[in-house]
This record gives sequence, C-alpha cells and structure tokens, in this order.
Amino acid sequence: MKPRVGVIGVGAMGMPVARRLLERGYAVRVRDIRPEAEAEARAMGATVSASPAALARECDVVISLVVDEADTEAIVFGADGLAETLAPDAVYVMSSTVSPGYAESIGERLAARGLAVIDAPVSGGPARAADGSLAMMIAGVPQALERAAGVLADVASQRFVVGSVPGDGAKAKIVNNLLAGVNLAAAGEAMALAMKLGLDARLVFDIVCASSGASWIFADRMPRVLAGDYAPRAAAKILTKDLTIAAATAAGAGVSSPLAAAARDVFAAMVADGHGEADDAAVIRYCVARAGPVSPRAG
Amino acid sequence: MKPRVGVIGVGAMGMPVARRLLERGYAVRVRDIRPEAEAEARAMGATVSASPAALARECDVVISLVVDEADTEAIVFGADGLAETLAPDAVYVMSSTVSPGYAESIGERLAARGLAVIDAPVSGGPARAADGSLAMMIAGVPQALERAAGVLADVASQRFVVGSVPGDGAKAKIVNNLLAGVNLAAAGEAMALAMKLGLDARLVFDIVCASSGASWIFADRMPRVLAGDYAPRAAAKILTKDLTIAAATAAGAGVSSPLAAAARDVFAAMVADGHGEADDAAVIRYCVARAGPVSPRAG
Repeated sequence: MKPRVGVIGVGAMGMPVARRLLERGYAVRVRDIRPEAEAEARAMGATVSASPAALARECDVVISLVVDEADTEAIVFGADGLAETLAPDAVYVMSSTVSPGYAESIGERLAARGLAVIDAPVSGGPARAADGSLAMMIAGVPQALERAAGVLADVASQRFVVGSVPGDGAKAKIVNNLLAGVNLAAAGEAMALAMKLGLDARLVFDIVCASSGASWIFADRMPRVLAGDYAPRAAAKILTKDLTIAAATAAGAGVSSPLAAAARDVFAAMVADGHGEADDAAVIRYCVARAGPVSPRAG
Repeated sequence: MKPRVGVIGVGAMGMPVARRLLERGYAVRVRDIRPEAEAEARAMGATVSASPAALARECDVVISLVVDEADTEAIVFGADGLAETLAPDAVYVMSSTVSPGYAESIGERLAARGLAVIDAPVSGGPARAADGSLAMMIAGVPQALERAAGVLADVASQRFVVGSVPGDGAKAKIVNNLLAGVNLAAAGEAMALAMKLGLDARLVFDIVCASSGASWIFADRMPRVLAGDYAPRAAAKILTKDLTIAAATAAGAGVSSPLAAAARDVFAAMVADGHGEADDAAVIRYCVARAGPVSPRAG
C-alpha cells in the first residue's frame, strides 16, 4: 500500500514533484494559494484540498515546496495549518529553502507536539523534479526517514542524509545555493565582459563549458539567454532570498563571505530594477545590458 | 613529415604538453629557465635548446607556456628571443594566459617582422594537457592556423577559433578564468561556511556535485583538499594574476566586476600570507582556516 502524499505549494518545483508522484502511482493531494495552480494540478489527476489542515488530515506524507519561511510558517502553524491535523504516525517533509535557524525552530516546535518532520531541501530545478532526479539534503530522526523513504526515493534519486536534526538539511542547502548564486552572478559578470569585448555569446558558451570556468548553473541557464527565453522556472527574487540567507548565515557563523554578498547585491539590484519575477537566468541579460554596448577593440 | 615542435616553458602545463607531443611522434625541443625542468624533459626524450632563439631556429611550430607577460616578452623579444630566429614560414603559438592588450601587442610586433603568431590560450589543467584533451581558444590569421593545425589538434581536442586577430583568444581566456577564479574562491567561502556549521566536508562535496552549485573547478580541486594534497599543479599566484587581468580588463572595458574583484582579493590575501606557491586548491583550506573552528550549533 503506497502512502497517501500531499504537496503544499505546486509552483515551479511543487508542480513537477506532484506530477512525478502521480506518475509513480501515488494518490496525491495538493494545496496552493493560487487557484490556477490548483486547477492545473487537478487536471493532471491530483485532489485539491481546501487548506493545509484539510490536506494533512488525509495524508501519510506531506511535502511542502512553498516560497519561503513566511509561507512555511503559514501553512504549518497558521490558521488551518497542517500542524492542526497531521497524524502522529505521518511525517512532514519541509523542502523549501529556509534558513538553518528557521528549520531548527520548525523541527523543535513540531517535535514538541509529537509530530515528525524532515528538513529536506532539494536542488536541481523543475526539469529534474519532473523525472525524479533531484538532489535532496535530508535531516530528521531515523523513524521519520523510514516512513518517508519510498516517497523521497521517488522524488529525488540523489539523497544525502546530512544529520538527524532539522536544520542540518537547510545548512547544506544554503552552502549549495551560495555556490549556485555566486556562480550565476559570475556568469552575468563574465558574459557582460565577453559581450563588451566583442566576443560571440554562443562561442563563449561553448568555450566555457569545455574549460575550467564551467559550472552546472552556467550550462543550465545560459542556453535560455541564448534563446531569449526568460519564462520563469526559478524567479530571480528566490535566488536573491537564498543569497540573503547564505550571507546572513555566514555572518552569524563568523564566516567572511564577500562573494555571496557581491552576488546578493547583483540580484538585489536586478530585483530593485523590477526584474524580480523574471527567470534568474535573466541576471545574465541584466549584467550585459548594464555594461552597455560593445567597445570598439576594447581590452 | 611532422613539423618540428618547440615548447618554451616546461612547467605544470608545458611539461605534459611536451610529453603528449613526444608520444604523438613529434621531434620536440624544449627550453626552460629551470635546469631541473629541462633535465626532466630531456629524460623523456626531448632535445634541450640553449635559448628561445636556438630553439626557434630548429622548429616549425613553437609553443610557449610560460607564466606571464614578462616571461613571454623575454622569450620573444628579449636577448636570444625567438623573434630573432623564427622562420617566416614557421608559426609561434602563444599559449600562456596574458591580457588581451598584451596579446594584441605581440601579434602586431611579430606581424611587423613578417612572423606568424597564434594567440592560443588553453584551459583544463595538467591532466588534460597530458592526454591532449585541453580546450584551446584560438585567434590568428587562417594561414597561420593552417600551418599549426595538426600540432594544435594533438595538444587540444577541443579547439575554438575565436577570431583572426591575436588578442581575441586572450579575451575568451580571461572570460573563462574570471569564472574559474570566482567559482574557486566561492568554493573556499562555501566550504568555510559548511565547516563552521559543522557539516561533513566529503558529504558536502557529494551534495554540491549533485546539485545546482556544482562547478568544474569545485569538482577538480575539492578532492585535493579532502586528500590534503596541495602539490602545486596551478599555483595560487597564477590564478591571482589571472583574476587581476580579468578585473583590469573589465575595468578598462567599463564592466562592473564585483565578483572578480572579490575573488582576486581572496587569492591576493592568500598570496600575501605566504601561500602563493601552493596549489590553488589551497584557497579552500585557507578560507576554512581563516573562518576558524566549528561553532557549536551555529546557524
């Protein structure tokens, strides 16, 4: 008997996760604050619940993929939050990117109610969510991990148990996102320089991908720039939030983080200029535009 | 009949390039300012020349892989430089990383003497130099490219013709190295944060490599850190130089480069602290050490 699964937040990541679970034969309930997202999930076969509490009442495993800490707080402890109805033998899988301190706090407050939570942020983007090949950083007590094991295996083929205390997953995710954010802001800076020096964008893309400057996020995002495709998969404001968490966590831990801070400032400027809802790949376009047109025989 | 090839500068990159050419059946001449490097090259079958001029007199294709612009200037235009003896139907392949302006200048001065030069920086490190799988950014007139084609194909399986004017190769290389340098400095910052948060280094390595923060240089350098192996392949001072060129080129082109500048400062601090000759992977160790010991339940 497969566990009954709920997905709260069917956005860029939650929707493909829900679809993947449906494809794997799970009965899936969803909840989102956007009616159009709920309608899309219903059309693909999910049951829509009226609230996080209504969803959690009917589920053995509840995964949240909402935007941030405020949204997480609302769906867990807000009115009609999942904490009201989650069964003691069910498990809550918190997969949004939040600060380590917040993940710890959620873990402690749910544990105080006798509820099981796994801090399980994911990485890899919508494409890998769709085929279950996400990476997942997992922190929770062994009993909770056991209960959710099958579901997590279907969501994320690459799973890393970081620790037994919620917060440890968030720590690993923040470390990863610091790198993703810096590498992407660097891609913007590098392409701005390349364009200004009169180089061909596609050729530079091919060169970098074959050279020491290659990164996963450059290879993933740059083709969108070359295609002029900025349909949002991960909105720029989300990476801004992630880098803000990374820089704040570093500051709190007494770690110098000039690169995270510089990358955060680049994304923050982009958001301030009104591009917060654009795909984060648009940071490359933003940097290129800010640098201005090509210099005659520059360099 | 294979062209006679000379390699000037048999260091971390030049030595494996010379070995690769010997394995491919070329008669190879070498020249280095370090007698021990020349002895090593002689032991593997190369002929040692007394000076760049003596080498160039006997070669159809001369490749230089010296450290920087000053070394390049010395071996080309210094006393007994290759410009004195290079044949008009030979070709000089300049493969060190230099600034675009300097590469242009070399191109112009050699062209004025009727000599052919290809601006051809490489990327990929010693391991890829050894098996001929380097990436090479190529700029030179078609006639020069034709003459060197066979040799370049044996050195670098991934070749990108960026333009016909020396300087264009250097531009592409600088763009790549900006990314490599920033991604590596970010790796130091991220691992310092991870360690300070009490995470396991090897687990974080595996997580990042499976996630959106992955980069070529993180995957290449981090295993050295995990193994405590800092035998220099690319010395930290070289990346410091590359980032200095990148930041200066960006400034000259009017491109904002906060990430390159921040990364340069990290490497410069490491060099100032006496680690300039260490492998550049040691920047990760440096950042971790600078952050200090793990914080109890930090984050």
